[in-house]
Amino acid sequence: MARFQIFVTYKKGIFDPPGATAERALVSLGYDEVSSVKIGKFIQLEVADGTSEERVAEMCGKLLANPVIEDFRIEPVEEA
Amino acid sequence: MARFQIFVTYKKGIFDPPGATAERALVSLGYDEVSSVKIGKFIQLEVADGTSEERVAEMCGKLLANPVIEDFRIEPVEEA
Repeated sequence: MARFQIFVTYKKGIFDPPGATAERALVSLGYDEVSSVKIGKFIQLEVADGTSEERVAEMCGKLLANPVIEDFRIEPVEEA
Repeated sequence: MARFQIFVTYKKGIFDPPGATAERALVSLGYDEVSSVKIGKFIQLEVADGTSEERVAEMCGKLLANPVIEDFRIEPVEEA
């Protein structure tokens, strides 16, 4: 079993509604120190041994992320 | 400006509908090597200098995560 972590974030300049909402909500709860909140996806993937990072990138481009508005970063997880 | 990254994941045993859907969809697209997909949140927070990790944990407990069904992990981001 191989594991990958994938971080999906909005591309620069793309509006992030959940992030903007959380930001306003935190400030209105009294957390004035907050200046920016961005909310993306954190994906934990388990695949068969030997699956390449390129193959995972293909899955991201086809299904896990929306390449039009999102960037993704893939990190292999080292087993403990 | 201080930065934190927050990883929000479902607690063990809590069903993750988007993850289960992505898993089935990937397998049906021919990615048979996929055995598990879990989808959580990846939050990038910018706060005033000197904001403690405890304070960020408080924000998570109150608004950014649902402590009933989700776990969160906070990582300070070192400036380059």
